[in-house]
Amino acid sequence: MNDYRPLRWTGDAFVILDQTALPHEERYLECRTVEDVATAIVDMRVRGAPAIGISAVAGLALAVREQGAGSDWRVALEHAAQRLAATRPTAVDLFHGLELARSRVTAAQTAEEAAQILARLVEELLERQWAIDRAIAEHGAGLLPLGARVLTHCNTGALGTGAYGTALGIVRRAHELGRLGHVWVTETRPRQQGARLTTWELRRVGIAHTLIVDGAAAWVMARGEVDAVLVGADRVAANGDVANKIGTLALAVAAERYRVPFYVAAPLSTFDLRTPDGRSIPIEERDKAEVLRLNGGWVAPAETPVSNPAFDVTPASLITGIVTEAGVILSPDQRKVQALLEAASGRVQ
Amino acid sequence: MNDYRPLRWTGDAFVILDQTALPHEERYLECRTVEDVATAIVDMRVRGAPAIGISAVAGLALAVREQGAGSDWRVALEHAAQRLAATRPTAVDLFHGLELARSRVTAAQTAEEAAQILARLVEELLERQWAIDRAIAEHGAGLLPLGARVLTHCNTGALGTGAYGTALGIVRRAHELGRLGHVWVTETRPRQQGARLTTWELRRVGIAHTLIVDGAAAWVMARGEVDAVLVGADRVAANGDVANKIGTLALAVAAERYRVPFYVAAPLSTFDLRTPDGRSIPIEERDKAEVLRLNGGWVAPAETPVSNPAFDVTPASLITGIVTEAGVILSPDQRKVQALLEAASGRVQ
Repeated sequence: MNDYRPLRWTGDAFVILDQTALPHEERYLECRTVEDVATAIVDMRVRGAPAIGISAVAGLALAVREQGAGSDWRVALEHAAQRLAATRPTAVDLFHGLELARSRVTAAQTAEEAAQILARLVEELLERQWAIDRAIAEHGAGLLPLGARVLTHCNTGALGTGAYGTALGIVRRAHELGRLGHVWVTETRPRQQGARLTTWELRRVGIAHTLIVDGAAAWVMARGEVDAVLVGADRVAANGDVANKIGTLALAVAAERYRVPFYVAAPLSTFDLRTPDGRSIPIEERDKAEVLRLNGGWVAPAETPVSNPAFDVTPASLITGIVTEAGVILSPDQRKVQALLEAASGRVQ
Repeated sequence: MNDYRPLRWTGDAFVILDQTALPHEERYLECRTVEDVATAIVDMRVRGAPAIGISAVAGLALAVREQGAGSDWRVALEHAAQRLAATRPTAVDLFHGLELARSRVTAAQTAEEAAQILARLVEELLERQWAIDRAIAEHGAGLLPLGARVLTHCNTGALGTGAYGTALGIVRRAHELGRLGHVWVTETRPRQQGARLTTWELRRVGIAHTLIVDGAAAWVMARGEVDAVLVGADRVAANGDVANKIGTLALAVAAERYRVPFYVAAPLSTFDLRTPDGRSIPIEERDKAEVLRLNGGWVAPAETPVSNPAFDVTPASLITGIVTEAGVILSPDQRKVQALLEAASGRVQ
């Protein structure tokens, strides 16, 4: 376990460690309604594809509970699912979570029964995520050379999954095994999840790291100081293309140029066979204020034209391997993605 | 002329448009001593390789003037040159400016005479920079396709040269000629010269632009929305390797991958034949607070380990062309760099 709890189900509330308050303050937010959860996702108080997926299920559990006996809980569930589906478009875990929750309550007779099923599902998903993250960490750590100097982007730790972390879980596991040399952390503009969250987590677990601006990553690779790039995923398309935090593609391109292995850590919940390739992944465009406002002040006037895509797409051809809980897909392509998902289907859901 | 004056010599002061106050305030700073100038360079109130070169000469002029008649002005000049040389290590214009100034006063008999020579040299350099920038702009604009969508990094405008601008001068000239489609501006972490200064200049001259975070540049190129990357240079080595603002290498690598022409705009004052290649260029490491502090608040705790190189090196092999006032060096290498500098030597100094 971590000594911090990013996501917690209390029985009548979903408690999240508010990621907008980190690293300065460890503030916990009690969500008691679906609207609380939806707002927390939109405001990125909870973020990271797996964490969003679990939060969405918690939102449904709260929605059904809110209804109480006698009312039409199925209508409430559908409204809640629509509200949650509209929060963020790119991470597919959100949609998978909503689907899974709906399938579990198909046979429920009463609001109370449905609420109980969904509450148990939240707890089940939190536990399962821990097992998934640990399996990813184990597979991933085996790919790293002894003394590996790793570069990571955004935050893919416990904060992003509610459990042990995906790409950062690999880093933690390599550290536990004595295989880790050093971690380069990119700050990850505009929201600085690397600078704010990843450095916070690495400090908490005692792993040596160095923060750099995003633009410095290619330079660190060119100097031969990186043995592997490890990133997460918000959606993996059927052909192995990966949508992830903006700036990921730039890292993949630099990694290819400087022959640095580029690994994507992605739970199976992040795969979406209905998305044939990267071009079909919807890319969220976020508020320009994320780029223009910092610490309450404006970097440039509010009317400055800005494009602020939250994600980019890295083509499968630039990916050395996708690390899942069911194994590693080296040089991913459609055939290999499908084969892994089929082999794992007994274990999924 | 611009409707703003980044650098101005009044006869007894060197007046700079304080670039740390932009874009919010147009504040002019009167430098009356060499220490005023040195501090302004260290604090990046004046920045950009050509602007730093001219400022250094102004610093020497003020140092000799401070001395007054009777004192040993040559000692004061040397002390001032040493102080200025220690301000920033990477931009070679600084050292070229100091050398040029010293060579001009070799025959001076008195402090007054030397002060007059140096004062005239400051004015001469400011005028000459205008001609240099305009020549670069003319050569560079000719390389762009009609309706060119250009991506630029950091600030290479009038603020960076004291005149018309280098890479941004090309953008301005292309706009004047009706050849410009759009400008993508990278914010340029950590000091955000793109977000703060380049958008300010483009607004002042009425050129349409869109600001993006540095990590989004590869994604914009991958989407096919960039026809050319234009950047400046802080030092060009004898073999055509270029030191420029951190993040430049990442852009060059992405440009190569997506077959986008990558041009470096560099006055001849930026070339350094005594530096054989990029590995020999000293790279300034700046204060970690530039990465950790934003708008007066801390992104992460002050003790967070940070690496903050101010520049990186782009190898000549990634550069489509270096645009100088004497012409364009396509696919630069040692032979071509030397040939251009020899051909231009009659025109230099």
